[in-house]
Amino acid sequence: MDNNERYEKGSYVMNELFSEEVQTGMRNIQKISPDFWDMIVSSGFGDLYARNTLTMEQREYITLTTLITQGAFDQLGVHIQAALNIGLTQEEIIEIIIHCTGYVGFPKAIQAMGIAGEIFKNYELNNTKV
Amino acid sequence: MDNNERYEKGSYVMNELFSEEVQTGMRNIQKISPDFWDMIVSSGFGDLYARNTLTMEQREYITLTTLITQGAFDQLGVHIQAALNIGLTQEEIIEIIIHCTGYVGFPKAIQAMGIAGEIFKNYELNNTKV
Amino acid sequence: MDNNERYEKGSYVMNELFSEEVQTGMRNIQKISPDFWDMIVSSGFGDLYARNTLTMEQREYITLTTLITQGAFDQLGVHIQAALNIGLTQEEIIEIIIHCTGYVGFPKAIQAMGIAGEIFKNYELNNTKV
Amino acid sequence: MDNNERYEKGSYVMNELFSEEVQTGMRNIQKISPDFWDMIVSSGFGDLYARNTLTMEQREYITLTTLITQGAFDQLGVHIQAALNIGLTQEEIIEIIIHCTGYVGFPKAIQAMGIAGEIFKNYELNNTKV
Amino acid sequence: MDNNERYEKGSYVMNELFSEEVQTGMRNIQKISPDFWDMIVSSGFGDLYARNTLTMEQREYITLTTLITQGAFDQLGVHIQAALNIGLTQEEIIEIIIHCTGYVGFPKAIQAMGIAGEIFKNYELNNTKV
Amino acid sequence: MDNNERYEKGSYVMNELFSEEVQTGMRNIQKISPDFWDMIVSSGFGDLYARNTLTMEQREYITLTTLITQGAFDQLGVHIQAALNIGLTQEEIIEIIIHCTGYVGFPKAIQAMGIAGEIFKNYELNNTKV
Repeated sequence: MDNNERYEKGSYVMNELFSEEVQTGMRNIQKISPDFWDMIVSSGFGDLYARNTLTMEQREYITLTTLITQGAFDQLGVHIQAALNIGLTQEEIIEIIIHCTGYVGFPKAIQAMGIAGEIFKNYELNNTKV
Repeated sequence: MDNNERYEKGSYVMNELFSEEVQTGMRNIQKISPDFWDMIVSSGFGDLYARNTLTMEQREYITLTTLITQGAFDQLGVHIQAALNIGLTQEEIIEIIIHCTGYVGFPKAIQAMGIAGEIFKNYELNNTKV
Repeated sequence: MDNNERYEKGSYVMNELFSEEVQTGMRNIQKISPDFWDMIVSSGFGDLYARNTLTMEQREYITLTTLITQGAFDQLGVHIQAALNIGLTQEEIIEIIIHCTGYVGFPKAIQAMGIAGEIFKNYELNNTKV
Repeated sequence: MDNNERYEKGSYVMNELFSEEVQTGMRNIQKISPDFWDMIVSSGFGDLYARNTLTMEQREYITLTTLITQGAFDQLGVHIQAALNIGLTQEEIIEIIIHCTGYVGFPKAIQAMGIAGEIFKNYELNNTKV
Repeated sequence: MDNNERYEKGSYVMNELFSEEVQTGMRNIQKISPDFWDMIVSSGFGDLYARNTLTMEQREYITLTTLITQGAFDQLGVHIQAALNIGLTQEEIIEIIIHCTGYVGFPKAIQAMGIAGEIFKNYELNNTKV
Repeated sequence: MDNNERYEKGSYVMNELFSEEVQTGMRNIQKISPDFWDMIVSSGFGDLYARNTLTMEQREYITLTTLITQGAFDQLGVHIQAALNIGLTQEEIIEIIIHCTGYVGFPKAIQAMGIAGEIFKNYELNNTKV
C-alpha cells in the first residue's frame, strides 16, 4: 500500500463519518499545515478506521470513550455527530456516557452529557428540516 | 430497587467477568473499607454493568478504552482477562489498542499492548492446563 | 436504605450546596437522561456527600482540589460558589489554589485563580444587591 | 525573606511531615541535582506548606486528593504516612478516597485504597514495636 | 539571592516573553491574590526561566510541549506568542505540534494546531500594521 | 513515498536512538501484533522523527517533556537513554525536568528525576566498562 492509497482510504472513511459542513471546518487545518492534514487523513483515518476486525460502530464506541476520558470535548461534539451518522442511537450514546461515569467520575460525564444534548437537538432539527 | 438488589446485581456481574482468583484479590479492599467495597459492587457493577441498552461485550470495549486512556494499567490487566472471559477475542483486544493509538499516543498504547501480551500468554496456559 | 432515601439525601445535600439558579441549570441534564440525573443525585450526592466522618467544608476542600487537578474548570465555578455558600472564605479558596500549584503546576492554578476571581466578583454583587 | 529562611522553613515542615527514614530516601534526589533539591525544600515545602490560612491537616487533605486525582501513586504512599504523622485518622483518609471516587472514577480510587491499606498495616506494626 | 532578586529576574524574563498587552491581562491575577502573583513571577519565571544550561528557545520548546500534552489550551496561545517573540519560527512551532501527535494523539494536536493558526494570523496582522 | 520507505526511515531513526538491547526488548511487541509494530516503526519513527525542521536533539526535548507530563515513566527511561545516545548531556536532561516542575508540579518531576538518576548511573557503568 503506498501513500496515495492510505490517503484515499482515509478520505473514504471521513466521508462516511462527517458531513460536508464538518469536513469544511476541519480543512482549516490544511491551510495551517498541509503535512499535518495528510497525517490526519492517512494515519488517523486511513491507517486506523479503515482496518478490519472492528466495525465502524465499534470504532466510534472506542473514540467516544477516549474523548470523554481525556476531556477532549471539542472533538467529542464532532464524533457524537459521526456516531449518529453511522447509525448509533441516542440511547447508545447516552449509555456510553453513563458507563464512563464509574471510570472517569461525574465532572467529565456531566460535561459530555451536556454536549450530547446539544448535538441531539441540532441533529433532530437538521433532519426535520430536510 | 433497594440496596440489596443493587448489591446482588453487582455480584452477579462480577461473577460473569472475573475468575474466583481475581475476585479473591479484589476482596482485599473489603477488609480496608467495607463501605467502599459495597460501593464498588452496588454502584460500580450493579448500577452500571447491569443496565440494559449495551451488551457486556460493548461495556468491555468502553472499559478497556477508558483504562488505556487514563493509564490505569493495573486495572487494565484485570479487565483484559474479563474481556476474554465474556468472549472478546485476542484480535479484538489488540485492535482496540491499535485504534486507541491515534487518540492517546504511542506510549500508552505500547504499555497496553505489553500488558495484553502477558495476559494472553497466561490465559492460554491456564486454559490448556484445564 | 432504599433508593428513595438515597435520592432524598442527595437532594438535601444539593439544596445546601447550590442556589436555585444553579440547580435549574443542572436540571438540563435530567431532560437528556433521567437515569443519569438519578445517578448524579443518588450516587454523586446521596452516597458521597451525605456520609459521615467528614464535614461539608472538608468535602469541598477535596472537591475543589480534584476539579483543579483534572482541569474540570466548568464544574470548578459551580463548586467555588458552593464552597462560599457553605461558609468557606475567599482566603481559604485562594489558599487551596496556591497549595495546588506545587502539585499541578502553574497553568492549571492560574486558570483556577482566574475563575475564582470571577465567581468572587459576582458573588459579592449578588450579596450586596440583596 | 531571603532564601536561607525559605529553606529553613521548608526543612521544618518536612520534619513535621516525614520520618527520618522517608527523608533519607528523598535525599537521593539531592545527589542527582542539588538545585532541584533546594527547589523542593524552599518552594515545595517552604513557600507552600509553611504559609498561613490553612492548617497542616487541611493541606494534607489537598495533597492526598491531588495525588489520587493525577494518579501519582508513588508519592501517595509517602503522603498517607505524613497525614498519619500529623494526626489524620485512618477513617479520614479512607473517607477522602471514597469522596474522590465520584470525581475520579473507581480505578484510581481502588488503587489508592490498596496503597492506604498497605501503609496502615506497616504503620501499625511500627507503632506497636515502639 | 534574596526574594527581590528572584522577582526582578522573573520580571525581566516576562518582558522578554510577553507583550505589554499580554502582561496587563496577566496582572488580573495580581488583584485576586498578590501572593500568588509573586509566586508566578519569582518561582515560575525567576527560578525557572532565568536559570542557565538551556536557552530561552529551548525552554519554549519544553513549555509548548507540556501545555499541549496537558491540554492547557488557554496558556498555549500566550506561549505561542511568546515563542514567536523570542524568535521561534512558525515552521518550528508547527513541527513541535506534529511531533507531539505521536505522543498525545490527534485530538490534542488538532486543537493545538487550530490555536497556532489563530495566533499566527493575528501576529502577522500586528506586525504588518507597525 | 511508499510504505517500505517509511519503515526503512523509521528503522534508521531507531538505530540512532536505541541500543541493540533496548530494541530487542521493544520487539516483544512485534510478536503480539506485527501490525502494531509496523505502525510504531513507520508512523511513530518514520513519519515523525525522520522529518526535517527539527534536529534529533530538539525532538528528544519534546519527547522527554511529553513523557514527563503524561506520567509515562516506563518510556521515559528508554528515552533518557536515547537522549544521552544522541548527545544530550546529563545537565540538559536534569534542566528539562527542573523546567517542567513549574508546569506539571513536583510529584511528576520528582519521579522523573529519580528515573534519570538510575539511568545516569547505569549509563556511566556501561561506558566505563567499554
